Amino acid sequence: MTKPPCKEISVNAFYANSPGQNWIGLWSMPGSRAAEYKSLDYWVDVARISERGLFDSVFFADTSGVHDVYEGSARATIERAGMFPMNDPLLVIPTMAHATKNLSFGVTANLSYEPPYALARRFSTLDHLTNGRISWNIVTGFQDSAARAMGRDKQHEHDRRYDIAEEYMEVVYKLWEGSWEDDAVVLDKANSIYARADRVHEVSHEGEHFRMRGIHLCEPSMQRTPVLFQAGGSARGRTFAARHAECLFINGLPSKATAERIRSVREEARSLGRNPEDIKFIMMATIVTAPTEAEARDKYEMISRYVDGEGMLAVRSGLSGIDLSRDLSGFVNGSEKARGIGTITEFLLKEEKSLDRLKDYAKFGPQAGRECFIVGTPSQVADTLIQWMNEAEIDGFNLHRSGEPQHLIDFVDLVVPELQNRGVYKTAYREGSFRNKLFGQGDRIGSGHPALNYRV
Amino acid sequence: MTKPPCKEISVNAFYANSPGQNWIGLWSMPGSRAAEYKSLDYWVDVARISERGLFDSVFFADTSGVHDVYEGSARATIERAGMFPMNDPLLVIPTMAHATKNLSFGVTANLSYEPPYALARRFSTLDHLTNGRISWNIVTGFQDSAARAMGRDKQHEHDRRYDIAEEYMEVVYKLWEGSWEDDAVVLDKANSIYARADRVHEVSHEGEHFRMRGIHLCEPSMQRTPVLFQAGGSARGRTFAARHAECLFINGLPSKATAERIRSVREEARSLGRNPEDIKFIMMATIVTAPTEAEARDKYEMISRYVDGEGMLAVRSGLSGIDLSRDLSGFVNGSEKARGIGTITEFLLKEEKSLDRLKDYAKFGPQAGRECFIVGTPSQVADTLIQWMNEAEIDGFNLHRSGEPQHLIDFVDLVVPELQNRGVYKTAYREGSFRNKLFGQGDRIGSGHPALNYRV
Repeated sequence: MTKPPCKEISVNAFYANSPGQNWIGLWSMPGSRAAEYKSLDYWVDVARISERGLFDSVFFADTSGVHDVYEGSARATIERAGMFPMNDPLLVIPTMAHATKNLSFGVTANLSYEPPYALARRFSTLDHLTNGRISWNIVTGFQDSAARAMGRDKQHEHDRRYDIAEEYMEVVYKLWEGSWEDDAVVLDKANSIYARADRVHEVSHEGEHFRMRGIHLCEPSMQRTPVLFQAGGSARGRTFAARHAECLFINGLPSKATAERIRSVREEARSLGRNPEDIKFIMMATIVTAPTEAEARDKYEMISRYVDGEGMLAVRSGLSGIDLSRDLSGFVNGSEKARGIGTITEFLLKEEKSLDRLKDYAKFGPQAGRECFIVGTPSQVADTLIQWMNEAEIDGFNLHRSGEPQHLIDFVDLVVPELQNRGVYKTAYREGSFRNKLFGQGDRIGSGHPALNYRV
Repeated sequence: MTKPPCKEISVNAFYANSPGQNWIGLWSMPGSRAAEYKSLDYWVDVARISERGLFDSVFFADTSGVHDVYEGSARATIERAGMFPMNDPLLVIPTMAHATKNLSFGVTANLSYEPPYALARRFSTLDHLTNGRISWNIVTGFQDSAARAMGRDKQHEHDRRYDIAEEYMEVVYKLWEGSWEDDAVVLDKANSIYARADRVHEVSHEGEHFRMRGIHLCEPSMQRTPVLFQAGGSARGRTFAARHAECLFINGLPSKATAERIRSVREEARSLGRNPEDIKFIMMATIVTAPTEAEARDKYEMISRYVDGEGMLAVRSGLSGIDLSRDLSGFVNGSEKARGIGTITEFLLKEEKSLDRLKDYAKFGPQAGRECFIVGTPSQVADTLIQWMNEAEIDGFNLHRSGEPQHLIDFVDLVVPELQNRGVYKTAYREGSFRNKLFGQGDRIGSGHPALNYRV
C-alpha cells in the first residue's frame, strides 16, 4: 500500500448562530437558508449534511457584543447582518446531537461573564446530552461593546484576561475532574443509594480572581473535561494554548512560517509535559467547488455578487479595532494607537497587507484574507488541501460558510470522495467521544494535561 | 349547554433536570426512567406524553446549589439523589420543543449569577427556537451553598434580593421590548439590508445594582418577553409577583385562605394598573390514579415503598433551612434563629404543622405536605380537582413526579378524558405562543405590565 500524500484531514463546518458570518451578505443569495438560523429544522439539516460528510464537528463561533468600530457605530453591522444578530449557540447543539450519532460539536463560550461553577455545569450537561461529543472554545472576549453590555466600563487588558483565564481553568478542572470519583455513581436500587457520598467531594478555590467552594452539580460525563479549543495568536495566547488546548485555530495562509509557529507551540507543549501530538491545528478555509473549472468559476462569480462590501469592512473593523471607513493614509507612521489593537503599522504587518490593499477586505476572494481560499474542481481542491496540509504541517480545516448550506453539500458530495480516494480522509467515524474520535486515545483528557492535576 | 363545574383547568408537568425531585427515591422504583435524565430520548418522551395530554407546559425547577442543611452535610443529598445531581435545564428544552408542536416550556433561571444582557439573550434564543413556547420562572436563589459555589460568602439578604431583582427586570425589559422595533427586520434582499439601523436601538441602564449599555443581540422573537412565572410566598415576593408575574405558583393546601391570598395578589396587580386576570395561579399536586380504588391504593402503596425518608428530610431541610435530623424539641420557643428562614415557630406556623409531625416529611402521602395529594379513580380525581379549583380560586396544577413517567401516562390516559367529559379541560391547543395559549390575548405581554414601559 502506498503512503498517503498527507495525514488524515480533519474537516469541520464553521458556524455562528447568526445570519451573517465571515462572508457577510450571503444571507441574501438565492437558495441561502442563512436567515433560518432561528429554526431548529435548519440546524438539524446542517448537522445531518455534516455527518454525511464525516466531518469531525460543527463549530460555533460566538461574540457577546456588537461590532461598532466601523464609522464608530453599529449601523453597518445592523444593516448588513455582520455577525449580528447573534443568538446563543449552546441552545441549538443538543437538538443537532440528537439528530446525529457521530458528529461532534464545538462551541465558543466567553469565560469573562459567568462564574466557573455555572459554566462547568453547562458543559457537563452538554457532554451528557451529546454522549461526549462536545468541545469548548475558550475565549475571553475582545469587544468593549460586550464589556459595556455586561456591565463593565471596558474589558480587562489583554494579558490580564489570560491571567484570569488561567485561574478560571483551574476552577473548572477541579469541578470536572476532582469533584466526583469514577465509581461514585452506583445506582444501588436495593439500598436506595444513587451515589456514594465518600466518592463525591466539595472542591474549593482561593485565588486572586476566584474564590469558591462547592460540589459539582453534575455526575461525571463521558469526557469530563470537554475537548478544549483555543485560538490565540499573541505570545501570551500561544502559551495558554500550549498548556490547555487540544485543538488550536491558526490564522494566516499556510506557509513555512505557519509550520514554524505550529512547531513552536508543540515544542512549548512538550516543555510543559504534554505530548505535542495531543494538539490539533486547524486553519480556516473557503472552498468553492464544482465538477468543472468553468462551473466553479461561475459559482465564485455568483457568490461574489452577494458578498456585501460594507458589511465585510464593518466586521473586519470590529475584529481589528481599526475603523476601515476612515482615510487611513495619515496613520502609516504608526504614531496613532489604533483602538484596542496597536498601531496601524503593527496591524498591517500582522495582516501581511499594505495600506492600499485594506479595502480588499470588502471582496469575496483570496485577496480579502489571511485565510485559505480555493476555487476549483474537486481534484484541484484536493491537490491544494494536501499541499497546505504538508506545507503548514496542520491537521485540517474549518470550512467557512459560503452557501448556506450549499457549500457543505458541495464539499460532502464532491470533495470528500476525492479525498477518500487519495487515502487522506476517513471512511468511517471512530467510536466513542469527540476526544477519542480525534485522537484515538480514549475519552478522557491526555496525560500531561494540567486538568489531570485536579483529578481525584 | 350547562355551565361547567369550574373554569378550564391548566395542567403542567413539573420536572427538574435531575433524577430526584420532590418525592425523593423514586428513581429506584421498578419501571422508573428517572436516572435517564441525562438522555434526550427520555426528555423527548416526557414532552410527547405531555403534549398528548394537552398539558400547557413541562415546567423545570432548578437549583444552583446542593442541599447541605440536613446533618450539616451533603451526605444524604448525594446518596439519595435529593434534587441532586442537577444538570442545566435550559439545554434540554429546544429538543423537547422540536419534538412537539404546541407544548410549552417553563424554566427556572436564577438571576443572581448572570448579567441581564446574557440572560436576555438566552431567553430570546429559546423563544425563537420554540416558536414562542417559553416561560421564565424568576428566582433569586435561596441556598448559601449556591452563593459559595458561585464565589460569594453568602447570598444577599431576602428583601435585598428582591430589590436587585426589580432592577434586573428593568434591564431585561429594556432589552426584550425596547431595543428592536417590530418593523426593524426587513430582509430586503435587493438592497442587502437585513435590518433597518434606525429601528434598532442601544439601551442603557444606570441603577444602583446594574449599569450597562448595549444593543440586544437577538431580533424580536414571537413573545419578546417570555411568559413570566414566579413563586413568592413572602410579602415582598407577593408584591414582586403582582407587578411582574403572569403565572404564580402557590404553595399550601387549597382552601379559603388560599383564595384570600390569591385575591390579594390580584387586587395588588389591579392597583398597579394590571388586569387581575392576567395572572394564573397554579398549585402543586400529586395524583395517583387507576381505574379502580383498589388499584389506585395498590399503586400508592407500591410508590410509598420507594420514597426515601432520609432523602425527603434532606431536601426539606435544605428548602426550609432547618436541620430536620436534629432533636428540635428545644427550639419551640422560637428563640433560636433557624438558618436563613426565621424561627422554628414561624416555620411551623407557615407549614401548618406541629413539631411532632415534622417527621411526616419523610413519607409519601398528604401528611408530608402542604400540597394537593389525591389517590383515587379518575372520577374521584376529577371531583377533587374541581372542588379545589373552586375552593381556592386557582387556575390549575403542576403535577409532581411520582411515576417517571408513568404518572403522566396515567393522568393523560385516565384523568384527561374524564375532565374533558366534564367540560373543564381543553380538547385542543389554542394557536400561537405560550402566552396566547394561556390567555388568548395575543403573543405579547398584556397591557398594564411594567415591561411595556420600555417598549419603543
